[in-house]
Amino acid sequence: MKRNGEPDILITGGTALTMSKTMEVIENPVIGIKNGKILFVKKAGHFPEYSAKEILDASGSVVMPGLINVHTHLPMICFRGLADDLPLMEWLNEHIFPAESKYVNRDMVYNGSLLAIAEMILSGTTTFSDVYFYESSVAQAAIDSGIRALPAQGLIDFPTPDNLDPSRKVQIAEKFIKKCTGVSPLISPALACHTPFTCSAETLRIIKEVARKANLPYIIHLAETRDEVKIIRERYGTTPVRYLHSLGVLDNLTVAVHCIWLDEEEMDILADYGVKVSHNPESNMKLASGVAPIPKLLEKGVTVGLGTDGCASNNDMDMFMEMDTAAKIHKATTGDPTVMDAKAVLRMATIEGAKVLGLEDKIGSIEVEKCADMIILDMKKPHLTPLYNYYSQIVYSASGSDVSTVIIDGKILMKERRLLNMDIYDIMERVRKIADAISGNNS
Amino acid sequence: MKRNGEPDILITGGTALTMSKTMEVIENPVIGIKNGKILFVKKAGHFPEYSAKEILDASGSVVMPGLINVHTHLPMICFRGLADDLPLMEWLNEHIFPAESKYVNRDMVYNGSLLAIAEMILSGTTTFSDVYFYESSVAQAAIDSGIRALPAQGLIDFPTPDNLDPSRKVQIAEKFIKKCTGVSPLISPALACHTPFTCSAETLRIIKEVARKANLPYIIHLAETRDEVKIIRERYGTTPVRYLHSLGVLDNLTVAVHCIWLDEEEMDILADYGVKVSHNPESNMKLASGVAPIPKLLEKGVTVGLGTDGCASNNDMDMFMEMDTAAKIHKATTGDPTVMDAKAVLRMATIEGAKVLGLEDKIGSIEVEKCADMIILDMKKPHLTPLYNYYSQIVYSASGSDVSTVIIDGKILMKERRLLNMDIYDIMERVRKIADAISGNNS
Repeated sequence: MKRNGEPDILITGGTALTMSKTMEVIENPVIGIKNGKILFVKKAGHFPEYSAKEILDASGSVVMPGLINVHTHLPMICFRGLADDLPLMEWLNEHIFPAESKYVNRDMVYNGSLLAIAEMILSGTTTFSDVYFYESSVAQAAIDSGIRALPAQGLIDFPTPDNLDPSRKVQIAEKFIKKCTGVSPLISPALACHTPFTCSAETLRIIKEVARKANLPYIIHLAETRDEVKIIRERYGTTPVRYLHSLGVLDNLTVAVHCIWLDEEEMDILADYGVKVSHNPESNMKLASGVAPIPKLLEKGVTVGLGTDGCASNNDMDMFMEMDTAAKIHKATTGDPTVMDAKAVLRMATIEGAKVLGLEDKIGSIEVEKCADMIILDMKKPHLTPLYNYYSQIVYSASGSDVSTVIIDGKILMKERRLLNMDIYDIMERVRKIADAISGNNS
Repeated sequence: MKRNGEPDILITGGTALTMSKTMEVIENPVIGIKNGKILFVKKAGHFPEYSAKEILDASGSVVMPGLINVHTHLPMICFRGLADDLPLMEWLNEHIFPAESKYVNRDMVYNGSLLAIAEMILSGTTTFSDVYFYESSVAQAAIDSGIRALPAQGLIDFPTPDNLDPSRKVQIAEKFIKKCTGVSPLISPALACHTPFTCSAETLRIIKEVARKANLPYIIHLAETRDEVKIIRERYGTTPVRYLHSLGVLDNLTVAVHCIWLDEEEMDILADYGVKVSHNPESNMKLASGVAPIPKLLEKGVTVGLGTDGCASNNDMDMFMEMDTAAKIHKATTGDPTVMDAKAVLRMATIEGAKVLGLEDKIGSIEVEKCADMIILDMKKPHLTPLYNYYSQIVYSASGSDVSTVIIDGKILMKERRLLNMDIYDIMERVRKIADAISGNNS
């Protein structure tokens, strides 16, 4: 029997970047974890004050909140590298959409999600928000692997592998919410409308209504491409953000993904309504969508998180790469090397991401009472030497493979780079079989 | 005693990306290495035909030419993360230049170079071109660690730590050439003038003359910032490329680094004279210098290689990260997702880089008679699964830590991620001590 008050896990040594409001940095900390929560975080005294069943030595390491990937499409990992460097419409219409219509099923979604989750844990991500078809299978993969997730059922006005009758969208949405509510403390369901041009005004409105009734985030790809702006202009005589505004679907539970082609007034609308933004620079660059005006959105007070987007357009799930790119791309396009500094970018990948998902009371920083979602980064490596500034080193020099330990909800899921509760060889083999079928028909 | 014709090293299995003119890809190859050279490269037969003292099993891996980093400043690794996210002039004048004037000495250059070389080998780079002060110490670090190098003594019109009397530039250059010529088959010396605005016309000309006489590459930072263009315009009434052209220093042994702010005619001048270009997108982004018009330069037939630049402005030596960024940034800025495809980018990091350095007869591809500079990439990892396209996977999904084995000049320098002839812990400790001194005076 454990003594009352004794933590389950104790992390000692190294440096804690708490990412709290005061951005407290604690050298040589002791962090206690109990029942999935952070019991205490403090500077170590001269004598050992605590014991625990599991003691993790973080000497020479950084302890920080786990990274939060606010937008991805996990099962698309099955299409990683299938079709790159192609014009957007050719990529979508000749490769991705045909592959999706033929190969997306519960098995593909579940196994692809498991591989993507493994890749995320291996690179320090502890929470993700996902949009896809058969989203309850994404949720199941999250539950089975122990990662925290905000899975969002994707809805669109075409028949999809998981819904051949688009008129049944509300039922699909409600069924999904029912299925994923209360199933695990780590799962928070959400709903997603694909885009303003692939969903009708009616769809956008009624799905927002379902989300509002259940008090859930409503996610939508928005202002991603110049073509989208053109289509919305032609169809509705206005721009994407103004159009959604006119439908009454913008509020502080709306997550707008991409937000590249915005004018000043549209940025103000997003700011005024407290709409959250997911920034996905690597996907935006690779698909040649453009560069989102993130420094301006931040100036206007918009909450912005970071996402990798799906593996078909990135092509990885590594949030460290995303941070590095997010910190650099806006410097190049604004001509100002002071925008998107390392500290701000690390906030985006942690506490700001938590705010985007409405989970800031639970995760995103190392603070007492919050859920114990933490990662330990080994800083004793050649490419992380010398070390002047933790934030710089993490954003500009570290990569996912520097994460040694991952704790989610107080459970150690990775230790010394070994995944403790996933059979990664089996998962890779399952996804290879899916890929074999896809490439056999794609060659 | 080895039988006559028996290779020293045999690599078997996996997939060889040769990066030859025909871009031959060999599944299940056997590659023989003898006396530092590639003896044979062919598809394996049904029966083992060869033996060797050292047999490397590359099953599930990619064997490819080592990466070539065409522009860096190794010793600046000592300043990694010292001063980021700052205005360029503040960064240079208040941090980098003072740190350089105070802390650059032979010891710092040598030990910093060793750490940078370790980081390069660990991330698959087998050849680098460097520009710094005390460059013969960079060469010494290369010799001691076994990496191939084109060290270029840096020359500038100010007193520098290694040359307090700027009028002695020609002597410094000639002494450097003498010191580094014939010292090792892996070392090819070169000369570098800092920029068109920190070197006088006289300096630019006489150093080019010294380089021409010795038939060596002449390296210069060119058209990196808008400020540079402004200064050259004010001083000489023309643009940087036209100015160098008027001095007669442009030819096919000139390597122009950065080349961001060029007009069409300047690109034509570079193309006409066969000037080589080093593209360093991560540094250009981080310092907010801008985005070089690489797709246009390639269209005009300019030979372009990839470089990481120094660690103070990147902040790593990982050419995989550089490839990923090079492939993505131009898509974002041109709006065309087909530019800088993965295959073209991998060529830039291998055979095109070799051409930039004038070493294409020796390195850059896996072909019989070439030097055995090769890396083996472990493709059996979660973030490299599934696998449809080798080039995509390497450029968009792999990172330096996926390199398992590095061979340079027929010697195995890294095996299963262990550096075989460098004491990395000792090297890191030496650089930490240098950094302690710097930060003690910088806080």
